Amino acid sequence: MPSSGLQTPALLVDETRFDRNVDRLNARLHRFGVPLRPHLKTIKNVELALHMLAGHPGGAAVSTLAEADHFFAAGITDLLYAVGIAPGKLDDVARRIHDGMRLTLILDHPDAARAVAEAAERLGTPFRVLLEVDADRQRAGIRPDDPELIEAARILRHGGARPAGVMVHAGGSYACRDRGCLVGAAQQERDVAVSAAEALRRAGFEVPVVSVGSTPTAMYAEDLTGVTEVRAGVYAFMDLVMAGLGVCGTDDIAVSVLSEVIGHRRRQGEVLIDAGWMALSRDRGTAEQRVDYGYGRVCDEAGQLLPADVIVRATNQEHGIVARRDGEPLDRADFPIGRRLRILPNHACATAGQFERMFLLGAHGDSIGGSIVDPIVDSIVPLARCRGW
Amino acid sequence: MPSSGLQTPALLVDETRFDRNVDRLNARLHRFGVPLRPHLKTIKNVELALHMLAGHPGGAAVSTLAEADHFFAAGITDLLYAVGIAPGKLDDVARRIHDGMRLTLILDHPDAARAVAEAAERLGTPFRVLLEVDADRQRAGIRPDDPELIEAARILRHGGARPAGVMVHAGGSYACRDRGCLVGAAQQERDVAVSAAEALRRAGFEVPVVSVGSTPTAMYAEDLTGVTEVRAGVYAFMDLVMAGLGVCGTDDIAVSVLSEVIGHRRRQGEVLIDAGWMALSRDRGTAEQRVDYGYGRVCDEAGQLLPADVIVRATNQEHGIVARRDGEPLDRADFPIGRRLRILPNHACATAGQFERMFLLGAHGDSIGGSIVDPIVDSIVPLARCRGW
Repeated sequence: MPSSGLQTPALLVDETRFDRNVDRLNARLHRFGVPLRPHLKTIKNVELALHMLAGHPGGAAVSTLAEADHFFAAGITDLLYAVGIAPGKLDDVARRIHDGMRLTLILDHPDAARAVAEAAERLGTPFRVLLEVDADRQRAGIRPDDPELIEAARILRHGGARPAGVMVHAGGSYACRDRGCLVGAAQQERDVAVSAAEALRRAGFEVPVVSVGSTPTAMYAEDLTGVTEVRAGVYAFMDLVMAGLGVCGTDDIAVSVLSEVIGHRRRQGEVLIDAGWMALSRDRGTAEQRVDYGYGRVCDEAGQLLPADVIVRATNQEHGIVARRDGEPLDRADFPIGRRLRILPNHACATAGQFERMFLLGAHGDSIGGSIVDPIVDSIVPLARCRGW
Repeated sequence: MPSSGLQTPALLVDETRFDRNVDRLNARLHRFGVPLRPHLKTIKNVELALHMLAGHPGGAAVSTLAEADHFFAAGITDLLYAVGIAPGKLDDVARRIHDGMRLTLILDHPDAARAVAEAAERLGTPFRVLLEVDADRQRAGIRPDDPELIEAARILRHGGARPAGVMVHAGGSYACRDRGCLVGAAQQERDVAVSAAEALRRAGFEVPVVSVGSTPTAMYAEDLTGVTEVRAGVYAFMDLVMAGLGVCGTDDIAVSVLSEVIGHRRRQGEVLIDAGWMALSRDRGTAEQRVDYGYGRVCDEAGQLLPADVIVRATNQEHGIVARRDGEPLDRADFPIGRRLRILPNHACATAGQFERMFLLGAHGDSIGGSIVDPIVDSIVPLARCRGW
């Protein structure tokens, strides 16, 4: 395995799976004629971002101003900063806009609109803003029938900022357990966005942007009438939480952590590896799902799931404890010290977020039923990742 | 507040509390005449490391080779890499030793000893190794009466490596609920280490190093006879898990995350901030303790706990949801959009591990009962942190 030359722990991306995941969502949205605004918080890398943006208008979403700078430096200029704006960041945002970044903000409260309007006047910056609308009471957003929606838009306009539309994220879709729930969450997300857009139009606002999305709803939407763009990020990497939702299969998960066996817990029939929560993250997303995979599922060095259902049961900072999910002891002869394993993560954003760089594995191999078996890795390309804020 | 000029989220270190924490453990170990080998995985910063090393022989522990490089470049040459060595790292370790780093490894299995012995012969590098001994069956280590302890030492010596002693980490101390348990865990850690050292001496080995430690056991040890060094790392920052154990008070916690209110969840009586799990980490360490603080306890911008018991109840990547712990609604008039808050972390290592830099706040102020009230921050010093592997 060429990956045996890599220092462990290392973040790996399977190029074949990544490409397939990107193609799948593109094909899906193409049927609706709605473009994608990929959310780059999962990949945090320029090369992969350019691949995800191909065939779309070129706009992306980010979760930090550090990401905005990272992608702007690579020529991606149309950026939606998809976290409610903190007033303390407005001077920094204005500087970026004056430098040519087409940065759009979001907010969900008249008080936040007042802070933006005040800064727009003070700094002479016509901040472009989407109003965040709430689909499912999971996190943020104004309800589409709340008069504060119109009030916030008026405050923005009055101060010289530009209310440019609405955005909705149906975070509740992550708690679905079946297809019906996912389809329903997607419909609700679309309906709420369009309803808010119509309320704004009735109040005399132009609403060029009606932005919806999450990976689960993007993959299950059946109606995008009135929607101008879909946002999704995890879809490119996928993870165990998405597989647990039924949004992908385990063999669609493109991201994994390469690690090495460093010891045995003989009495417990468990194995120690050099990937702990610093590499895997503390995310326990599958704990809420039908099948709890601890801190991740264990594959061999080539990325194939081990025959028994093997997971990372527990972690310390730089140690992982590998065990069978059914509690039966592992045969330690199968796990010699020095053996390399790959761990599929619960949550791609959280695990990838722990790394400054990753390695893209180009592969070819025999294909059986659409999945690559016995892949031969023929290239390893190091890719930088953005970090910090 | 001078911290109002900082970008949020930001990692803050209270210099007064940091100094007091360092002094407290130093004074404690001074009574036993045992030096400290500070574990630098919590702070990951040179300036703070030099402060922690003052008055001790100068050796430190690290959890990654990246940390070893980071501190070696600053002149800290005696480094214990306190994670069982992965055979795949031995060539990299040898390079560092040849460059002058006095890097000591650990292992807990004859097979790992064989890999080190083979590399020692192949590379002409007399790796210095401590044998990891198991105190409480929590993670790794050979039991002190297991013949594999002597076998591993013999394999190392035969290959030209240097078995230099034993190390024990009583990770089980983190699960204690009272002082008796902590004192017992410390005694067990010491007893197991000394017993393993004696077994090695009976087999003809010199055992210059008998290394024990964890922050809880370092703070509660009553007998360190036969121990040559104590390791601890969290003690300098402290955190809610340590406070929950009784190892420190909440007002000893030196590390916090500065964040800003970005919205309200009116119906739920909750508040949104711009610090999610990317800043706070996914660590839920207090979930297992008597009082569960979610993703952290909320303080005002000056670092004083809010009058009601307020926590970060939930997190997304860059969003935190702030709520009263008792479920009663917050008064949103107390949390205007733009207000800054500081979050005390569950686990200092995990939260600090999310940041590339931190800000040391120097403060003076009126002191009541030993704790600074109404502090006036008079300096903010940015400090770099090591990241990666």
